[in-house]
Amino acid sequence: MDSAPPITNSVAAKIPKDWLLPTSLTSQYTETSTISVLDSVEVVTAFCKRAAIAQQCVSCLTETMFDSALARAAECDAYLAREGKPIGPLHGLPISLKDSFNVKGVQATIGYVSFIAHPPAPANSAVVDILLQQGAVLYVKTNLPQAMMTADSHNNIFGRTLNPLRLDRTAGGSTGGEAALLAMKGSVLGVSTDIAGSNRIPALCCGIKSIKPTASRVPFAGGVPVGRLGSPSAILPVIGPCGRSVRDFQLFLKSVVGKRAWGVDADALNVPWRGISPFSRPLRFGLLRGCKERPLHPPIARGMHHTATKLKEVGHTIVLLDDKVPDLYQSALLAWKFFLLDPNRTPLKHIQASCEPVVPSLPTCSFPELAEWKPNLDELWNINVQRAEMVKAWKDNMVQENLDAVLMPGYQAPAPKHDTYGVPIYTVVPNLINYPACILSTGFAEKEEDGTFLKDVKYEPAYEPDEVEGLPCHVQILGKPMEDEELLQIMKVVEETLGKK
Amino acid sequence: MDSAPPITNSVAAKIPKDWLLPTSLTSQYTETSTISVLDSVEVVTAFCKRAAIAQQCVSCLTETMFDSALARAAECDAYLAREGKPIGPLHGLPISLKDSFNVKGVQATIGYVSFIAHPPAPANSAVVDILLQQGAVLYVKTNLPQAMMTADSHNNIFGRTLNPLRLDRTAGGSTGGEAALLAMKGSVLGVSTDIAGSNRIPALCCGIKSIKPTASRVPFAGGVPVGRLGSPSAILPVIGPCGRSVRDFQLFLKSVVGKRAWGVDADALNVPWRGISPFSRPLRFGLLRGCKERPLHPPIARGMHHTATKLKEVGHTIVLLDDKVPDLYQSALLAWKFFLLDPNRTPLKHIQASCEPVVPSLPTCSFPELAEWKPNLDELWNINVQRAEMVKAWKDNMVQENLDAVLMPGYQAPAPKHDTYGVPIYTVVPNLINYPACILSTGFAEKEEDGTFLKDVKYEPAYEPDEVEGLPCHVQILGKPMEDEELLQIMKVVEETLGKK
Repeated sequence: MDSAPPITNSVAAKIPKDWLLPTSLTSQYTETSTISVLDSVEVVTAFCKRAAIAQQCVSCLTETMFDSALARAAECDAYLAREGKPIGPLHGLPISLKDSFNVKGVQATIGYVSFIAHPPAPANSAVVDILLQQGAVLYVKTNLPQAMMTADSHNNIFGRTLNPLRLDRTAGGSTGGEAALLAMKGSVLGVSTDIAGSNRIPALCCGIKSIKPTASRVPFAGGVPVGRLGSPSAILPVIGPCGRSVRDFQLFLKSVVGKRAWGVDADALNVPWRGISPFSRPLRFGLLRGCKERPLHPPIARGMHHTATKLKEVGHTIVLLDDKVPDLYQSALLAWKFFLLDPNRTPLKHIQASCEPVVPSLPTCSFPELAEWKPNLDELWNINVQRAEMVKAWKDNMVQENLDAVLMPGYQAPAPKHDTYGVPIYTVVPNLINYPACILSTGFAEKEEDGTFLKDVKYEPAYEPDEVEGLPCHVQILGKPMEDEELLQIMKVVEETLGKK
Repeated sequence: MDSAPPITNSVAAKIPKDWLLPTSLTSQYTETSTISVLDSVEVVTAFCKRAAIAQQCVSCLTETMFDSALARAAECDAYLAREGKPIGPLHGLPISLKDSFNVKGVQATIGYVSFIAHPPAPANSAVVDILLQQGAVLYVKTNLPQAMMTADSHNNIFGRTLNPLRLDRTAGGSTGGEAALLAMKGSVLGVSTDIAGSNRIPALCCGIKSIKPTASRVPFAGGVPVGRLGSPSAILPVIGPCGRSVRDFQLFLKSVVGKRAWGVDADALNVPWRGISPFSRPLRFGLLRGCKERPLHPPIARGMHHTATKLKEVGHTIVLLDDKVPDLYQSALLAWKFFLLDPNRTPLKHIQASCEPVVPSLPTCSFPELAEWKPNLDELWNINVQRAEMVKAWKDNMVQENLDAVLMPGYQAPAPKHDTYGVPIYTVVPNLINYPACILSTGFAEKEEDGTFLKDVKYEPAYEPDEVEGLPCHVQILGKPMEDEELLQIMKVVEETLGKK
């Protein structure tokens, strides 16, 4: 044994020659050295480089803050060295932001050409303030659609974000830049917004994870308004994380909700984050298998079926909800009326102000049924009543069936071609009823296995098995309102059951 | 010592002869008897009798449920005897309800003559369901104003509720029947609603206590709507308890919020009640001494001053907020616009449907400035922006000054004469900003001592020292949103400091 070479040398010998670090560096890595090989500057440098690569491949960024990020990382390292403790739970971690968040001194056009004339942001968004207090390093802002109201992150300033998994597919929207960056490993945690699916659509298109919490838990104040302020809509925009680990979502949410959120945003709920234990009991899941207007494509149907089957196998209960909750298509139609409540049509004015063209996906993301619908105060009272009935029906189901969560699709298909996503029926319903909702991967489209789930229905967009082969499939999971804590634990249960963790 | 008579006999000797219970009863009260002298039937009988007396003095009731209450009490007693445990924390306790709550099988006209034709309620209000689950006994419903929008509990079905402390004074509204009943000791705990002060105005008029929690903590569903359903107003109606003990408010709120609330009302917040410890640290109170449009009458000014002084004396901090928060009169004016958002003016239609006359106080409870104001969708966006600015300004003050609570008046005067209360400037502001708020007594009007606080201003209504002599004075205390738990503890601190407990 004495003659055997040290194990480390054996490992080193297996590293390809052109991957070796220069000896000028490795000679410093000794048992007696006080240097850190994993400080914030190195981590942030790596993520800045990777984000730059991602940008060159899939056009996912809007603003880059590499210099200030590296300066901030150096400050974090200095603080840790000086104080012997981190700034906060997010100490030194690079976090990416959708372009709609304000970072003091940085441009925030959100893809409106007319906003190029705006001065850089005079102050941080509320959530940005908290992230910085907690030690985070902000290094990039990411791309989004014109008017933030389509599933294609495409605008006339920053162009179109491509899906890293297949470039002719949408990366989703409105937080498509984040999802593409995450899928490119250019970020571990991104901050997105969601009013109809913007946090979840990109996640399901790019095969990452995301969670849209209950509204007003993460402070929304101080972002760049895409439209008019003062909306009387019952559907509130929500901030949520997207990334690759449920633990990261827990860390993010624990760091930014409660008293901290209310302290920077009077509209945020002053409700503490609850530390809860993982579930040890069997769970009860509702199951919704879509609506007739947008039947599930075979790979999505198979992924849902697989998820429900696996959960049942390990002892959880599945309750079919298909005909019990309010019609999903009609619910989405109602939600859309809330989005049309501005008599001034402010987002359109922001577009027209520069004479820029409308992006191709914008007209595809609307309901023909509402072409003639005009908002007025009387109608607002009426749609509030309709919404209240739907919200009650959902709650009654959750209570009567004693459900912990509901499994449903987030979209009927894997990532579709650019400009063909259409209206986001399945993601907007949780916004309408204000239930927390998340996206998890269930596997990948596989033509042969998916074939069993083929039905004689009209798929929209068209189902082209060869074109989606290998693209990620997903399940959307809804938790109960204000039980974001429980939903994260449920995500872990589902992931473990699917063997994804 | 042996020759001394037993202490109990000595006590008995001091009871006036005509107060003595008949020996047919007292002979049963022995050490070996298994009977209870304090069962629910006896308690409920006592409160039913006392409520009947109160009704004959001050017209505070609408519906009486004496028979069903006694039957329910007997059930409670039987349950306890059979099961050896109470039904819940409210086991066998009589609780009174404002007329606007639905109790299955009982009429609920809320004072609209046109509602007399309605059948008895087909189901319970959500909060009534919870109260029954927790063991409560419901025995009376109490009077309120026509359209529930004045401070005089007066309508054309049940007449006018008088203030037990001085009959020519208002008992307040809209929960005036409750407050009069409580002041008459005909109830220990009443359930009221509040959108502009309806839980607090009667409390301050009748010298009792009340708390309006943060909106949506107590489930509001299933009551009798005073107007149209589906309101897009940012100001939500709130249910809160009124009574004589902060401990009772704690018991009530702990029993009806959280998962239990959401289970019966999809619009209730699914946020658990937090068990918190009493404060042992010094507190920081903001102090608001009214607005120039409604200067504080001397007895109220003295009570406020006394409260602040006493709190300072025992080590708490008082921070003057007079010029720091948004103008109170302008805030109330803005709140009123939210109350005028129904283009159909539904409450007026309910009045007109029977050709009943409008009660005299209704025209006194409006702003002349808004006589010509008409609601529309565009204006709703605008007033939402104005409200958001006010809410932000309040929050910024609370955070920057690190305040635990704010002391302010609930009204400028002790209970005024009938039909002279006017617009409730001071109580509506906490509704506009959705802060929990409560009423505590500070003492009584005393002409000589109050004189020091007399100013050369125009009091509205007129300050008539001899007419208010001996009437209760109050302070309103605001807590932070969602910190209802803390506000209850702060109430205890203030009560103890004032020597009222």
